[in-house]
Amino acid sequence: GTDVHLWHGKLAGVPYPLIPGHEAVGTIERIGPSPISYLNGKEIKVGDRVTFHDVTKTCFSCYYCLIAKTPTKCPNRVVYGITMDSTKFPHLIGGYSEYVYLIPGTHIIKIPDHVSFDGAISVGCALPTAIHAVTRSPMKHGLNVAVQGAGPVGLMIAILAKISGAATITSIDQAPNRLKITKRFGVTHTLNIRETDLEERKQALYEISDGHGPDIVYEATGNALAVPEGIELVREGGTYTICGQYTDSGTVEMNPHLMNRKHLDIRTVWGSETTHVY
Amino acid sequence: GTDVHLWHGKLAGVPYPLIPGHEAVGTIERIGPSPISYLNGKEIKVGDRVTFHDVTKTCFSCYYCLIAKTPTKCPNRVVYGITMDSTKFPHLIGGYSEYVYLIPGTHIIKIPDHVSFDGAISVGCALPTAIHAVTRSPMKHGLNVAVQGAGPVGLMIAILAKISGAATITSIDQAPNRLKITKRFGVTHTLNIRETDLEERKQALYEISDGHGPDIVYEATGNALAVPEGIELVREGGTYTICGQYTDSGTVEMNPHLMNRKHLDIRTVWGSETTHVY
Amino acid sequence: GTDVHLWHGKLAGVPYPLIPGHEAVGTIERIGPSPISYLNGKEIKVGDRVTFHDVTKTCFSCYYCLIAKTPTKCPNRVVYGITMDSTKFPHLIGGYSEYVYLIPGTHIIKIPDHVSFDGAISVGCALPTAIHAVTRSPMKHGLNVAVQGAGPVGLMIAILAKISGAATITSIDQAPNRLKITKRFGVTHTLNIRETDLEERKQALYEISDGHGPDIVYEATGNALAVPEGIELVREGGTYTICGQYTDSGTVEMNPHLMNRKHLDIRTVWGSETTHVY
Amino acid sequence: GTDVHLWHGKLAGVPYPLIPGHEAVGTIERIGPSPISYLNGKEIKVGDRVTFHDVTKTCFSCYYCLIAKTPTKCPNRVVYGITMDSTKFPHLIGGYSEYVYLIPGTHIIKIPDHVSFDGAISVGCALPTAIHAVTRSPMKHGLNVAVQGAGPVGLMIAILAKISGAATITSIDQAPNRLKITKRFGVTHTLNIRETDLEERKQALYEISDGHGPDIVYEATGNALAVPEGIELVREGGTYTICGQYTDSGTVEMNPHLMNRKHLDIRTVWGSETTHVY
Ligand SMILES: [Zn+2]
Ligand SMILES: [Zn+2]
Ligand SMILES: [Zn+2]
Ligand SMILES: [Zn+2]
Ligand SMILES: [Zn+2]
Ligand SMILES: [Zn+2]
Ligand SMILES: [Zn+2]
Ligand SMILES: [Zn+2]
Repeated sequence: GTDVHLWHGKLAGVPYPLIPGHEAVGTIERIGPSPISYLNGKEIKVGDRVTFHDVTKTCFSCYYCLIAKTPTKCPNRVVYGITMDSTKFPHLIGGYSEYVYLIPGTHIIKIPDHVSFDGAISVGCALPTAIHAVTRSPMKHGLNVAVQGAGPVGLMIAILAKISGAATITSIDQAPNRLKITKRFGVTHTLNIRETDLEERKQALYEISDGHGPDIVYEATGNALAVPEGIELVREGGTYTICGQYTDSGTVEMNPHLMNRKHLDIRTVWGSETTHVY
Repeated sequence: GTDVHLWHGKLAGVPYPLIPGHEAVGTIERIGPSPISYLNGKEIKVGDRVTFHDVTKTCFSCYYCLIAKTPTKCPNRVVYGITMDSTKFPHLIGGYSEYVYLIPGTHIIKIPDHVSFDGAISVGCALPTAIHAVTRSPMKHGLNVAVQGAGPVGLMIAILAKISGAATITSIDQAPNRLKITKRFGVTHTLNIRETDLEERKQALYEISDGHGPDIVYEATGNALAVPEGIELVREGGTYTICGQYTDSGTVEMNPHLMNRKHLDIRTVWGSETTHVY
Repeated sequence: GTDVHLWHGKLAGVPYPLIPGHEAVGTIERIGPSPISYLNGKEIKVGDRVTFHDVTKTCFSCYYCLIAKTPTKCPNRVVYGITMDSTKFPHLIGGYSEYVYLIPGTHIIKIPDHVSFDGAISVGCALPTAIHAVTRSPMKHGLNVAVQGAGPVGLMIAILAKISGAATITSIDQAPNRLKITKRFGVTHTLNIRETDLEERKQALYEISDGHGPDIVYEATGNALAVPEGIELVREGGTYTICGQYTDSGTVEMNPHLMNRKHLDIRTVWGSETTHVY
Repeated sequence: GTDVHLWHGKLAGVPYPLIPGHEAVGTIERIGPSPISYLNGKEIKVGDRVTFHDVTKTCFSCYYCLIAKTPTKCPNRVVYGITMDSTKFPHLIGGYSEYVYLIPGTHIIKIPDHVSFDGAISVGCALPTAIHAVTRSPMKHGLNVAVQGAGPVGLMIAILAKISGAATITSIDQAPNRLKITKRFGVTHTLNIRETDLEERKQALYEISDGHGPDIVYEATGNALAVPEGIELVREGGTYTICGQYTDSGTVEMNPHLMNRKHLDIRTVWGSETTHVY
C-alpha cells in the first residue's frame, strides 16, 4: 500500500501511540481452511504482522454500492466492533479481545517490517477517514489549508495535506499539546480557540494566505459549532469539507446568505472505503 | 448561442411575459464610432434586435478572475443597473430608460428572428443564473431532481433540467399559478408548501424517485428556511445547489450531523459569467 | 430504471428490431430455490418479462474493482455468452438457447409493460456501452456532438445525446439506411463517408457548430481509421471518446503534434458496468 | 506565489543554471507613468528583482477565453519573444536584450530574496507548462508516475510530482547526466532508453508499481515516438498526459485497439495560463 509507505516515511521516529481506540493490529496465528491473499494478490502467511480495514464488507449489489457510487452509505455493510454482535459467530470481533476472527473478505493489510504496531494502529480507521475527506476535496500542491480539530483524524488530514504539498497548513484546536504535536508533522501554523476569538482566527488565516483565506477548510472536531465557523473561515470560492459530525448534537445557527455569497463547495464525508486504506 | 436556440425551441407558444424586472431587450439605434461584433465574430448592425448580459465586465486580472477561477467574485465587475451610478457617464444604464448605452465590451446577444422580445427578456439575468446553477451541479439525463422555488430562476432551472433529460422534475412553491406554469414546461410533479408539511414533501419525493429522494435539489427561493429543508429533501450522497440566497435574512437552525451523515455535495452559486449566456 | 423509461419514451413506435445479436429478452419460467429481487428490491415473479445485463459479475475485491475504480477491467468478470463455457454448468448461457439459466447475482431488469421485447433487446449490451461512453464524456445540453458510426452503439449514443439536450448531433456512417434511421431518433445532421472526403466532413462540422467543430466526437465504428479522423474533426479543447475499437486491426498513422496542439481530452471506454443499465 | 515558494524550498542549493533559453529575470529600472502592482495587489518598486510570465495577454473576450475555457487556445494572445515583432514598439521584447519593456498587463512576479536569478529563471516558461500538465492530470499523493523526458519541462513535472506526494517517480531519457540530476530532485527511479528496450521499460515500470504500471505517464520529450510508447507504459485505466509535442514531426504508427482496450484518459496540454505561474 502506497499510502502506508508514504505515511510511514513521514512519521517514523515520532512519539507514539497517538491514536487509542478500536483499531487493531496483530500477528496472524492461524489461516484456513484455504489460503487467503492480500489485496495485491500476495499470500498471507502465519506470522505476518497485519492490520485490517474496520469496514470489512459492503454488498456491491445495492443502489448505494452500484448506482450512487457511495458505498459508505451501503445499508448492508459490516464494520468490526460496530455493526457486529459478539454473541454470535465469529464472536471475536473487536480489537480488545486477544484474538480476532477475520471474516473471509476482510481487507487485510501487511504492516511493513519497519513500521511498529503502534505506528500502524491508525491505519484501520482514522487514516481511511482522513483519506476519504482529502479525496473528496480539491487538494493539490501550493494550497493554503486549515484543519479544525487536531485529534487523530484532523492530524491525519494535516499530514496528508503536507504530503500533498500544501503551502500552509493551519491546525485549529483547544488543546495546546495536540497543537504542539501537529507542528512535529509539518503543520505550519496553529490557532488555539481558547486564546483567540473568531475574528482573530479569520484575520490570522487571511494573513497566512495572502489575503484570501484558506482554499480548503477541513472539519474534524465533532463539535457542531465548528461548522458555522468553518464557513466563516474558508475563502470565497473555496471548499469546506466536513467529516467530524458523527454524532447528533442538534442544530446550530447558520447563515444561508453567507453560504451562498461565498460561492462555496461544501462536501460532507461519511465513513471510508477499502480504497482509502490500500 | 445554442442555449438561446434550445430554450426557444422549448418555449415557443407559451404565455408571456413571465419575467418582469431589470432585464432589457431592444433594437440597436446607433453604433460607433467603430464597428462592434457579437461574441461569435459577426458584426452588429443598426436595427438588430438584441439583449445583453447584465454583467458586462469582469477584470480578468485579479486573483478571483485568474487564479481562483471564480470571476463572479471579481471585486471589479460592472453590472448594468446594479454597480453603476446613473449620474455619471454613460447615464443610460438601466433597462427602464428608453435608451441604454452599452459600454464597449458588453456581451450583446442577437435575438433570433423567431423569438419575441418577451421571449428573450430573461436571457440577460435569470437564465444565466440558472445556467450557472445547473453547470455547478452534476446534472445528467435520467436523474430525479427537485427545484425549490418556481420564480424566474427556478423555472429556468426546471427547463434546463428538462432539456438535460432529467427523469423527474418536481417544482416546490407556494403559488398555485406558478406551479401550474411549470407543468407547461415539462415539470413532472409539483408540491405546494402551503398544502403539505415537510414530512409529506419528503415522502412524496421518496416515492417519485423510487425510494432514494432526489439526486439533485436546487434552491431558488430567497427564503432562508428553504436551506435546512433542502438538506432534508436531497437523497444520501446527492447534491444540493443553492442559488437563491441573495439577500441576508439572518441565521436559521441547521443540523451539522444530518449534513454530514448524508454525505452530500452542497454547492452555492453566486452570480453568472458570460459563458452562461452564450 | 430511469434510463429504460426515458429511452422507451423516445423510442416507442419506431421500426424494430434494430439490433440483432447476443442480447436476450424473455419471460421468467421458474425461480428458486429462494426468492430473488430486482436491483430496486422488488421481488421477481414467474411470468415477468425481463432482460439482463450481459456482464453479470465483477469481483469487487481486486485492484481494478476497488482501487482503480475501473470494474470493466476486472480480470474476474463473467459475461454471458462471452466468458462462459457452455459445456459446463449452467450450460444455458447464451441468448440463442430457448432457456437461459441466470446465475445468482445477475442484474435482471424488468421490461415495462409498454415496451416490447424488440424494444428491450438492446438494453443488455449496446445501451450500457453507449451509456458508459456518454458518462465518460462531458455531455451537457447545448453542445454540438458528432458520432462516428450509426450501428447499435452509435445510434444509442446519438439518442442519449438527444435526451441530454445536445444542440446538434451529426451521425457519420457509410450506410444510407442507417443514417436515415438516425434522423428518426433526433439526429440533426448526417454525413456519408462514401459521398464526402475528410476535408468536406471537417468543413461541414465547422459550419454546423458555428465555426469551432464539435465539442465532443464519439467513435463507435470498429474501424481503426476512424480514430485519426476523429482527432481531425473534434474542436480545439474538445473531447474525443473512443468506444468502438474492440478488435485489434493493427496500427494506423497518427500525428502526435496535432493531438497535442488541439489541447484535447481523449477518453477510451472499455465495456460497461451494471450502473450503466440501471 | 505559493508555487514559487514551494519550489524554492525544494530546489535551494542545487546546481544551476538548469534551463537556458528565452526566459528572463531582472531588476526593475524604471516604472511609469503610473504605479503598477503585482497580481497580489502589492506595488512594484524600482529595484525589485522580478521575472514575468512569457504569455502576457489573452483577450478574455473570444470564444476560447470565455466559452471553451481554454485560454491557451486564444487566437489573440501575446507571448514575449514569440508572437511580438521587435521592429515595432516596444521593441525590447526578448530576454536577451539588456532591457525589456514590460507591456502594461504583463504578469510580473517578484523573486523572493532568498531565490537567485538562476533559480528563478525557469518560472517564466518551463514551470507554467509543467504546472499546466500536472493540473490537467489526476495527480495526488501515493500515485506511481513516470515522466518521459528529463529536460526542463520533464524535470519540473517530476518535481511537482514529488511535491504532490507521488509514491514513485520514474524519469525516462537518453542522457545519463539529465537522469542523474533528476535523482537529486527526488525522482525514485530512472530508465535510459539507450540501455533498455520497450519491453524492459514496461517490465521495470510494472515492478516499480506493484504490477499495474504507472497511474500517470507524462510526455515531455518532443519526440513523436514517445507517444505510442507512453500508451504502452501507462496502466489500464490510467492517464497519459502529453505536453511535449510542440513541433510537427509527422505521423507515427499507433494502435487504436490498444488505446481503447486500456480504458485510458489521454489529455494533451497546449501552453500555459497565468494561473499556472502564480
Ligand atoms: Zn451495498
Ligand atoms: Zn475508529
Ligand atoms: Zn477580476
Ligand atoms: Zn436580474
Ligand atoms: Zn475485480
Ligand atoms: Zn453486445
Ligand atoms: Zn481570447
Ligand atoms: Zn519557453
